[in-house]
Amino acid sequence: MLAADKTRRRRTAGAEAAPRAAYILRKLDTFSVLSVEGLSLIEANADTILQETGMEFTGDPEILDIFRNAGCDVRETRVRFERGFCRRTIQATAPAAFTQHARNPANNVRLGGSATVLCPSWGPPFVHDLDGGRRYASYDDFKTLVKLHHTLPWLHHSGGVVCEPVDLPANKRHLDMLYAHIRHSDRAFMGAFIGAERAGHAIDMARIVFGAEFVAQNPVLYCVSNTNAPLVMDSHMSGALKTYARAGQPVACTPWVLTGAMSPTTVAGTLSQVLAEATACLALVQLIASGAPCLMGSFASTMSMQSGAPTFGTPEAGLMVLAAGQLARRLGVPFHTVGTLSASKLPDAQSEQEAAWGLIMSMFAGANLINHATGWLEGGLVTSFEKTIIDHDLCGKVARFFDGIDLSENAQAMSAIAETGPGQHFLGSSHTLANFMGALFRPLTPDNNSFEQWQAEGSKDAAQRANAIWKKQLENYVDPGLDPAIDEALRDYMARIKASQPDMNYF
Amino acid sequence: MLAADKTRRRRTAGAEAAPRAAYILRKLDTFSVLSVEGLSLIEANADTILQETGMEFTGDPEILDIFRNAGCDVRETRVRFERGFCRRTIQATAPAAFTQHARNPANNVRLGGSATVLCPSWGPPFVHDLDGGRRYASYDDFKTLVKLHHTLPWLHHSGGVVCEPVDLPANKRHLDMLYAHIRHSDRAFMGAFIGAERAGHAIDMARIVFGAEFVAQNPVLYCVSNTNAPLVMDSHMSGALKTYARAGQPVACTPWVLTGAMSPTTVAGTLSQVLAEATACLALVQLIASGAPCLMGSFASTMSMQSGAPTFGTPEAGLMVLAAGQLARRLGVPFHTVGTLSASKLPDAQSEQEAAWGLIMSMFAGANLINHATGWLEGGLVTSFEKTIIDHDLCGKVARFFDGIDLSENAQAMSAIAETGPGQHFLGSSHTLANFMGALFRPLTPDNNSFEQWQAEGSKDAAQRANAIWKKQLENYVDPGLDPAIDEALRDYMARIKASQPDMNYF
Repeated sequence: MLAADKTRRRRTAGAEAAPRAAYILRKLDTFSVLSVEGLSLIEANADTILQETGMEFTGDPEILDIFRNAGCDVRETRVRFERGFCRRTIQATAPAAFTQHARNPANNVRLGGSATVLCPSWGPPFVHDLDGGRRYASYDDFKTLVKLHHTLPWLHHSGGVVCEPVDLPANKRHLDMLYAHIRHSDRAFMGAFIGAERAGHAIDMARIVFGAEFVAQNPVLYCVSNTNAPLVMDSHMSGALKTYARAGQPVACTPWVLTGAMSPTTVAGTLSQVLAEATACLALVQLIASGAPCLMGSFASTMSMQSGAPTFGTPEAGLMVLAAGQLARRLGVPFHTVGTLSASKLPDAQSEQEAAWGLIMSMFAGANLINHATGWLEGGLVTSFEKTIIDHDLCGKVARFFDGIDLSENAQAMSAIAETGPGQHFLGSSHTLANFMGALFRPLTPDNNSFEQWQAEGSKDAAQRANAIWKKQLENYVDPGLDPAIDEALRDYMARIKASQPDMNYF
Repeated sequence: MLAADKTRRRRTAGAEAAPRAAYILRKLDTFSVLSVEGLSLIEANADTILQETGMEFTGDPEILDIFRNAGCDVRETRVRFERGFCRRTIQATAPAAFTQHARNPANNVRLGGSATVLCPSWGPPFVHDLDGGRRYASYDDFKTLVKLHHTLPWLHHSGGVVCEPVDLPANKRHLDMLYAHIRHSDRAFMGAFIGAERAGHAIDMARIVFGAEFVAQNPVLYCVSNTNAPLVMDSHMSGALKTYARAGQPVACTPWVLTGAMSPTTVAGTLSQVLAEATACLALVQLIASGAPCLMGSFASTMSMQSGAPTFGTPEAGLMVLAAGQLARRLGVPFHTVGTLSASKLPDAQSEQEAAWGLIMSMFAGANLINHATGWLEGGLVTSFEKTIIDHDLCGKVARFFDGIDLSENAQAMSAIAETGPGQHFLGSSHTLANFMGALFRPLTPDNNSFEQWQAEGSKDAAQRANAIWKKQLENYVDPGLDPAIDEALRDYMARIKASQPDMNYF
């Protein structure tokens, strides 16, 4: 097959050779798991929680003043809200969609509407690969992951803490992480998320890269702000939240719950709590900086009631993400959530059953940004190099799937059917030859060959093949370059900040 | 935790101890990938194919007479249809839903509406397990699989050719397969699907089990009737189809295509061809036996254009199954399709990414029967014992997911949130203690424990854990028993048929 040879040549150019979309624009609908009545019930219950129980904002009196000045009922650190107050506050000024800029404008990402942005793994203190096994993550691993992600066409964002570089001082490593994203990738990235001071560093560094005026006018960072469920936000989180909000930088207000532990053991109860927490924090963003970009986030999974261990890729997690997506759309803000989560220790069948479940559900939920779309293992303790590759296939699959069905005359292929006729094959038809290059999505990892061919190639499972793929991708990594003046300014800035305080190994 | 101990005890009773649903009743909606205009376009194109190209029915002149008598344009073995003829014929008399009876009425399955029935792997000539590796399947394997499936609560049907027992003569093994389903399970099962004679044997054996009068009045078998795409049905298939139709037994008319080989390389082109083939065969069923139960089937996947190898769990396969589900609902007959397909050689990350994709999409497509919901590896060449267990978890997950969100007062858990309050955990709350037993779905295979605990238990991957699980399930297998008179009559019948013809090793 002459045509097949052409494809093989094209494929050897690597995934990066394929045309890359900066983000997904879903042409298919979202999926609803709750009726309008069901959604109204959850909203009414969230209002009741905010009114009767309220939420704690600890460690930052300024936050309490902001709520007090807005007319909320503040007693000690507890804030209670009139029914509908949070929703009204958000809907009055929060934008429905916005763009996060990358230093390469071709990589700008849209957040809102039918856009979906896929981000890599976030937060793990360990990394895992088939060669080195499971080990504490280092800054070298961090840089390697940033480079690897940069080569992966179906990821859209460089992410944040792609792994936790535990060989660097805990109070300074955010600087190095930011620098690695800026230096080794030209995609959009996340800001430091713990505390006002570090958020300020991220904004300073962004100003060096993008210019202060541009940063004042445009989102160039992204902050995930988690609650301490149930119903608490501490000053680490509220400090970063207020700093980014004041700088006009996006904050994804994301309750993180495991049902039965940090929320009720039921889906409906958890949803009301998630909505209460998210809307209280989103209202805070708007009270701090009217019109600041923000997202409703939800990271709701389940817990094994036998062992207390977190569980992922579960039916209840699927129901929660879909309902949360509906709630976010009714609120009118973009929706942030999570992707290929797994409790598995290895990139095995468990990991991909859970990963596929999670990412598919988040896509049907109409998520606008999906964190942890690749690589997450062991309940978030590990970033796996091999799982990154395997999950990345899934990222490409959902992108192609949500592009929907082409109904053009060419895609209808009526002439091909008439030409081929009963009992004949389409392999050599002119329609097939003209269309096959772009007709079907091609993931990187699957082996679809015969058993005998697979055996001759070493009987490798998906993880072993992924091991070879990530190494090949890294070989093909192309440094996006960075203006030496900017590079020097960033290094100077970091050196100054680092010199100003002693190393500390706690947060 | 006292409560956790109780759960552990309950769990050791095995999956069978959990309450079993005879089939899934979906409470959530189906998902649409085509608009009404898009669906009309595909239908119009299918009409054009049937009118202009038509379909071949080879090897059985009676089929051609049936079409000729119905006014179709028959030349040699080619049948062409007036626009709308097939649809009108089907819609005039085909039932929208029906029940397939099992010999244990508790296991009767509903086909149609929002019911979904999950069936095991079908057709593989090989089996695979971690102990014996990949090997030709035997009748012992067949019986073991029937018993294993019978223990699995989230499968609903005993299936058909759960593996191909190649140690038995090809022309007689259908008798032994039918016997194994009847003897070792009391769930519904499928009939022999190749040729009129063997279909007749299945009906005879069903009459022995259920009584002739009951079989005349009720569906007790199930036949998958594949076309030889493009646009051919041979007498092996049409022979079984007409025999079952005349006996009032359900036929799932199921074009089996790999895009680019047996259909155009595009989704839209393939859909029109699939609809044309399915409706021609469904119309045949209704012309043979007005009102006979039938299903529109679709088994449409893709092909690697590099190697010609079949590929599964692809975005295009997802789009095709969802669109086919919409087309079947517009036609007004139940929808038959496929589940956890994979080209992987092992129960690894590839196999479960593809499996999860396939089963989730088929569920969103509103499938009424999903064949190959467990165990299929290597493009259908292998039934894997371990993948059966891993996929079975997925069967349970989709069942729980499509049960939707409980919005009862208890599930809303407002008292639990009020009682627990900010910053406290829900583990010991009275609501958690009262609800956790049934609150969350519990699959069998995942390991959610800490890395250290997992290591202490042998660092097993999902496949290794599944290996222990299927053995345990088999230990717990409970023989459903069979009336000795029926058993003897079945054995007599089989002996008579077997004696009447020499063994042959081709079909």
